[in-house]
Parts: sequence; C-alpha cells; structure tokens
Amino acid sequence: MLTNKRLIRVQWGDCDPAGIVFYPRYFEWFDASTILLFEKATGLTKIKMLEKYNGAGMALLEARAVFKVASHYGEDIEVESEVTEFRRSSFFVHHRVTKGDMLALEGFETRLWTVRDPGNGRLKSGSLPPEIIEGFKRA
Amino acid sequence: MLTNKRLIRVQWGDCDPAGIVFYPRYFEWFDASTILLFEKATGLTKIKMLEKYNGAGMALLEARAVFKVASHYGEDIEVESEVTEFRRSSFFVHHRVTKGDMLALEGFETRLWTVRDPGNGRLKSGSLPPEIIEGFKRA
Amino acid sequence: MLTNKRLIRVQWGDCDPAGIVFYPRYFEWFDASTILLFEKATGLTKIKMLEKYNGAGMALLEARAVFKVASHYGEDIEVESEVTEFRRSSFFVHHRVTKGDMLALEGFETRLWTVRDPGNGRLKSGSLPPEIIEGFKRA
Amino acid sequence: MLTNKRLIRVQWGDCDPAGIVFYPRYFEWFDASTILLFEKATGLTKIKMLEKYNGAGMALLEARAVFKVASHYGEDIEVESEVTEFRRSSFFVHHRVTKGDMLALEGFETRLWTVRDPGNGRLKSGSLPPEIIEGFKRA
Repeated sequence: MLTNKRLIRVQWGDCDPAGIVFYPRYFEWFDASTILLFEKATGLTKIKMLEKYNGAGMALLEARAVFKVASHYGEDIEVESEVTEFRRSSFFVHHRVTKGDMLALEGFETRLWTVRDPGNGRLKSGSLPPEIIEGFKRA
Repeated sequence: MLTNKRLIRVQWGDCDPAGIVFYPRYFEWFDASTILLFEKATGLTKIKMLEKYNGAGMALLEARAVFKVASHYGEDIEVESEVTEFRRSSFFVHHRVTKGDMLALEGFETRLWTVRDPGNGRLKSGSLPPEIIEGFKRA
Repeated sequence: MLTNKRLIRVQWGDCDPAGIVFYPRYFEWFDASTILLFEKATGLTKIKMLEKYNGAGMALLEARAVFKVASHYGEDIEVESEVTEFRRSSFFVHHRVTKGDMLALEGFETRLWTVRDPGNGRLKSGSLPPEIIEGFKRA
Repeated sequence: MLTNKRLIRVQWGDCDPAGIVFYPRYFEWFDASTILLFEKATGLTKIKMLEKYNGAGMALLEARAVFKVASHYGEDIEVESEVTEFRRSSFFVHHRVTKGDMLALEGFETRLWTVRDPGNGRLKSGSLPPEIIEGFKRA
C-alpha cells in the first residue's frame, strides 16, 4: 500500500515550556499527513479531489496517539503515513513518527468518506470511490 | 466609543520553551477580540453580521504589535479592544494588553470591510454600514 | 470526584475551511482542561504544584478523542473534565464535550506523574502525592 | 547579506472558514524563518547558539505584517528572510512572502539580542556577537 513520508523539523513555536512538542501539534501533523497521502494517491489536491468525487470531506470518527519518546525543539522527526484498511466508507490511517532509529509516537485516525446528499444538501457517509482506493494499491 | 475587555489566562500550550507566550498567540487573541468587539456592537455573530450586510469579511491590511513585557504560563492578562477610527471602508483597531497595572503589549490592526460584487462574485471594498458604526457610538 | 467545567466559545481561528473546529484544537482544550482540573484540586498553578512536589510534569502516554457532532464558529461548547482513575503513578482523564444537550465528542488522556531523579537528573515515573489525590476526593 | 528561503505548502489546518490562511500563522512562519536564518548564519541550532554566546534569546520588540494577497489551502508560498540592519543589540528582519510572481505579504520584526546578567540572573540587552554578524556577511 502507498505510504507518505514527511520530515518535520521541530520549531521553537511547536514546543511548550518543558521544551518538548506540545502534543496537539502532532495531531496537526497527522491531519496534514493524511491529506498529503490522499493527494499522493489521487494526484489531486484535497479540494480538487472532493470536487471530482462530489465528496464533502473525510470526517474524523476517532483520533488517537500513543506517545513513547518526547521530541525537542530543533530535532528532526519523520512521519510515515499509511491507510491500513479501507471499508465501504470508513478507513483507518496509521502514522508512525520516528526520530532517528527510535519510534517516538504512533497516531491512528478513523475517518469517514462523506458526500453531500443531492436532495437535502446534508452530509452523509458515502462509498469510497474505487479509483481512489486503486490509487493506494498502485503504489 | 465601545470597547471590549477579555481576561485571558495564559495556558501551558500558549508558551514556548522560554516559558513565555509564543508571540503569534497574541495575534490570535487580537483577531478574536476584534470579532468579539463587532459582535458587541451589532448584537450579531460575525457570520450573521456578514449575511445581514452582504459582507464578505473584514480583510486585514496590516497587523502590528509592540511588545513591552513578556507574559508567562499561568498569568492573567486583559485585552481591551477599541476601534480608533472608521473611514469609508477601512477601520483601525487598537488592542491594549495589560498584566495587572502593567502595559504588556499593544496591538494594531488595519482592516477593510469587503463585500461580494453581485456581478462577478469577486470581493471588493465596500462602505461600512452606518448601522454598524452607530452600534459603536451608542455604547 | 472533582470535575471541572469550562465554557468555550468557538473562535473563527479555531475553524478550518469547512467552517468546523480543526480537530487538534480539541486536544489543546483537553490539555488546558486537565491542567485547570489539577489547579482546582490542589489550589496551585501547575508550576507551583510541580515545584511543591518535586514533580517534573504529567507526561502523556496516550490521547484519544471520539467525535460525534462537529462544532462551528460562534457556537458555545462545554468541556467537563474528570479523573476517572488514579493508579500509583498514572491516571486517566475523561473530557466530555457538550453543545447544548448534545454530546459532541469525548476525550481520553492517560498521563504519568513524573519526577526528576535527584541522582542523575533524569525523568522517571513517581508516585502521585496522596495530598493531590485527596484534593480530588474532597470535592 | 545572507537570505533564507523556505517553501511552505499551505495546509488545511492553516486556513480559516473563509478558506484563507488565518493570519497569525504568518507570524508563526516569520518566527521560524528568523530562527532558520540565524541557524544558517551560525551553523548552530538556536539553542546551541544561545549557549555558545551566553545569549538568552532574541526578544521581540515589534512585529508587523502588511497583507496584499490572501493565500488559500493547497497553495505554495515562499518566505524569503533577511536581516536588513544590525545595530548594537537590536536588529531588523524582513520577510517577503511570494506566491508565484506575486508579492503576497511582507513581515517585519524588530528584535533584541538578550543575555543573562551573571550578577542577578536577569535578562538584559547585550551586544550582538561580531561573529554572528560576520556569518551574515560571509554569505
């Protein structure tokens, strides 16, 4: 399956008074990493992808992180992201954050492909377009 | 002229490894304070206000802060906000941040009232609705 | 057991292009809510509490959120926080976020009380001071 | 004089409900860009640089941004940063943000080199180490 790797240099403003990454920052990086992974799979920006497939977003059902080793200002970390399972409309993303050889933390997102109901305009879950899933397998 | 005061307790995650507020946070507080000031003047949330006046936003032309005294985790600061001048479509906001008796910093925003051109849908500057300006003077 | 409630007005800058809260913001609010809960239990700011008990922090082992209903700019949400279990050095925090009568999301943090080893200065897990736990029960 | 260029892909979470960059994000990028510029000039991370020169930080006296063109989710912007003047202990940083051929905004920071007084431990302004200034000129 397709993976996406990003190197992140931890910035001064990412860190708290203890000098380590303020933990919500990791979720910001997970969110952006999931989007980058879909952009890699589809060759489209998130907005173009949603337009093309009449999608309304990738709603978050659950987000979780398990922390092993703190990261400090000035350190480089790598986020490797992968969809571990596609269901009909939901999917599971796994983010593995390493610092050199060490596993620093892991992130898990459960997301739902949503579309806009043409009748009433409301959001509802939709089937993931097979082309998108193919894009992940081609890699 | 109407003013708005907000007490902010500086949170752990607002601070950097030096233990003081990471400066972009002040601009987040300025932005929210300007919105709260307009909500106070109009009795409408920003979104309702924009809808009512066919407005498309209060575009920022310039933002500036002059720093005097740093603030630390756990301290309480007060942001007092005021529009110092209304022109036809632009206006000037002044934010005075105090910590007890001390002036900690000052913020200045120059903003432009924008509307959506009914012809081509583009954003352009528009005259500030007199009712809104009245709301500031009534106070 | 002691609980802490905070009303949060969702700000413009908390929201993403879909107009809903960008999810890492919830974790920022959880982090601050956990600190506020301990401040309520001990009557001390986090920094004073750590000093008094030779503590070095409340390291995060795991953070999780389960999302039900999105929140939009201008809405008011309430975060109610509680420690659901104290072990020797770890503890579990539950955050319940409501919007009016609706449960909007829930957050879960597993944290570890850490102290600085007087020998080598390294961080290690420590027993939670009984006085702190008492502060939660007194409520 | 030395300059530093960074390409930034605007992320979903950087943008507000209007779909454009929430303006405090630019100041986050300015802060990080100033640090990266000093790291390039000295070959040291900010923390190592402060240690080597007994420095205590680059305190902000003033920050300002002048906005021309908004940037949207998915766009690439480039931040080019330069120190425009060194005085004895203060210095002026200019950030020029472009989107393709367009000047999107400009940022200006006035900062003060601070050191820790060996006598009482307090922060005070200090002379900028000539070696650091040399590092900017060598480029």
